[in-house]
Amino acid sequence: MIPFEPQFSRMGAQLSGSAIRQMGILAAGRPDLISFAPGYPDPTTFAWEAYHAIADDLLRGAGADTLQYGPTRGYGPLIETLVPRLRANGIACTTDDIVITTGSQQGVDLVTRLFVDPGDVVLVELPTFTGAIAAFRSVGAHLVGVRQEADGLDLAHLDEVLAAQRAAGRRVKFLYVIPNFQNPTGGLLSLAKRRALLDWSRREQILIVEDDPYGDLWFADVTRPEETRPIKADDTDGHVIYLQSTSKTLAPTFRTAWVVAPPAVIERLDVAKQSADLCSSTLDQRIVHEAIARGVLDAHLPVLRAAYAAKRDAMAQAIARHAGDVARFRLPRGGFFLWVTLPEELDARALLPAAIEAQVIYVAGAPFFVDGSGANCLRLAFSAASAARIDEGIARLGGVIRTMAAGSGRRVPQESR
Amino acid sequence: MIPFEPQFSRMGAQLSGSAIRQMGILAAGRPDLISFAPGYPDPTTFAWEAYHAIADDLLRGAGADTLQYGPTRGYGPLIETLVPRLRANGIACTTDDIVITTGSQQGVDLVTRLFVDPGDVVLVELPTFTGAIAAFRSVGAHLVGVRQEADGLDLAHLDEVLAAQRAAGRRVKFLYVIPNFQNPTGGLLSLAKRRALLDWSRREQILIVEDDPYGDLWFADVTRPEETRPIKADDTDGHVIYLQSTSKTLAPTFRTAWVVAPPAVIERLDVAKQSADLCSSTLDQRIVHEAIARGVLDAHLPVLRAAYAAKRDAMAQAIARHAGDVARFRLPRGGFFLWVTLPEELDARALLPAAIEAQVIYVAGAPFFVDGSGANCLRLAFSAASAARIDEGIARLGGVIRTMAAGSGRRVPQESR
Repeated sequence: MIPFEPQFSRMGAQLSGSAIRQMGILAAGRPDLISFAPGYPDPTTFAWEAYHAIADDLLRGAGADTLQYGPTRGYGPLIETLVPRLRANGIACTTDDIVITTGSQQGVDLVTRLFVDPGDVVLVELPTFTGAIAAFRSVGAHLVGVRQEADGLDLAHLDEVLAAQRAAGRRVKFLYVIPNFQNPTGGLLSLAKRRALLDWSRREQILIVEDDPYGDLWFADVTRPEETRPIKADDTDGHVIYLQSTSKTLAPTFRTAWVVAPPAVIERLDVAKQSADLCSSTLDQRIVHEAIARGVLDAHLPVLRAAYAAKRDAMAQAIARHAGDVARFRLPRGGFFLWVTLPEELDARALLPAAIEAQVIYVAGAPFFVDGSGANCLRLAFSAASAARIDEGIARLGGVIRTMAAGSGRRVPQESR
Repeated sequence: MIPFEPQFSRMGAQLSGSAIRQMGILAAGRPDLISFAPGYPDPTTFAWEAYHAIADDLLRGAGADTLQYGPTRGYGPLIETLVPRLRANGIACTTDDIVITTGSQQGVDLVTRLFVDPGDVVLVELPTFTGAIAAFRSVGAHLVGVRQEADGLDLAHLDEVLAAQRAAGRRVKFLYVIPNFQNPTGGLLSLAKRRALLDWSRREQILIVEDDPYGDLWFADVTRPEETRPIKADDTDGHVIYLQSTSKTLAPTFRTAWVVAPPAVIERLDVAKQSADLCSSTLDQRIVHEAIARGVLDAHLPVLRAAYAAKRDAMAQAIARHAGDVARFRLPRGGFFLWVTLPEELDARALLPAAIEAQVIYVAGAPFFVDGSGANCLRLAFSAASAARIDEGIARLGGVIRTMAAGSGRRVPQESR
């Protein structure tokens, strides 16, 4: 047996699994378990009939290329379809500014590989998406967190952090942000801060990587669509790399997302993607293209917004009902996630075994923080479960938290509140 | 404008595109151009009706998970289906030994990232697959070539090369080989050499990465199926990482391939894949699973073998007819590729503009060699074109070569032969 351990690369030796993915595996095939863990869309919202009809058309064999390898850059007609949609959202672009990726995860991974050498700094929000953290860590990035306020990134802290990194002699490669319905907090970056960030990027000559999987899923009661305007929309000089996905709107299976960036960056992402997976699935890209071209996506978005807003309401009400004394949160204005802060003495990771026993799961907050904080936070995805299951799941979770907080649990120091 | 150039990572600054992919783009949408360039399967061989029926079943919405995110490791029933198939091919394995990848390209990429640090040595065949070369280079591997003989890798040269690398103080991480119908030579590694390589791996404690996309496509007139036995089949102690794909048999679009390796390696590949693309398309994996479970693949393989053998014959005959005086080759015993050696003074890259003008393309040999040799070689894929197009394309190519060889071209020193 070759002793593998010493053979692994530095990256290979450091790998640690995603907290979200682990929860996803745990939930699979356990119908009694209520999962608020992975950010899965609700499969009952998928346009099943439309995909059935589209696949029926595509697989009749009329287009010999449908099942063939495609260009690494992506399926041409899909890219062409995206241009006017991005423009309608304020983003001036042409087909030369776009590369299709195998989910936005691949976009983040390729952008990271393109820009980051070991030891280079990537600035991230506190907290931020664990999948992005994993991609940054996989190339040996030095991750530095910037605090968030109610309206998003704390700009004073951003300046402070940047100055400290520069003083330490480190190269800061980019700032990674999720302005719309942030993962994991569900927060919305204010328009004023978006403009300020772009000014910061120009002043400091540091790229912004803007990840926007949830922007279309604003909730009409508390969010105006103008408030989701991408930072990229005001980027006239190539300071922003923008990522968008269909995983949270059409369906995750198609693994179809895209990066919008200056052509000099897109050309290199194209080459980097060649060695990553040659090309994304042609059939999946064609289904997505047809779903957009036939109006399925546009017809579907209002339905999704209403459905997810109703689930958010169900979860907010359930928390008020079952856990209002032990769980604080801010009402999400869109997206999939509700971010909970527990009493300070509680550790969300320590609660997890009892939660699993009670047949409810979530993602503990700490893995979303690159600075080691967040132990008393947790992320709840309200996207996948039905309203009734949300209520039941929160009731279970409230019981677990209350038991722990009351000190009858074994894992937490006793304190009443 | 941020000046991107100095911002790129070392990898990002060094990227150069694939010669194969460039040819693929050139060929797309030009029906008059005859392409022997990318290793595309013939779309007329695809099981269109079966995929149509399978998609029809899957998209009726009975399985809510069909369009959802799936486990990073891959779709469970697909992995279970692979175990007895791999065992039938001699490879003792369980579901713990398998991870599904987004094409074998991703498998090569992930294995590389898992094991190779910048400066580490990867040993490759001279010549070898450019996509693998790109993945190795993307992490800064030091690539060292080993010559091939008629029956595959030159074992004496392998020993010599390894000793030299060790003397230079370099860490050799693995040997990458394509034993069956090698890309680009079409060669077959002899059974004796497969056993010798495994002994070498044990003796030297160096992993073998065995890439096997073409193994099922043996040509009955000159190859017995036993001759394709994977090296992995005799690997009782975890010295071989084995990669297999459905891109050359079912269809490339599904991007469904797998890596077979000891669980300690698979677990880390799983985590590395999380940050690369979270998971491969669930729908694609389900289609592949159904195609295997319903017997589509097994029913199809004899048809494919016969079809590609006939194309090989068409190309061999066409070369004899149109270019026998200027192009030497060995008859492929399976797979997609025929490897041509031109007169020494000809450079296949320099021929390419004239070939494109004559509406025929191929991939020049040099990019397949990591030692800078191979200028007078080229790779012809006989897989995609019809027999009639093969004959016509070789006639065009023969004309181009002969013109150049006769010195009437501008790019080649005059010499008659």
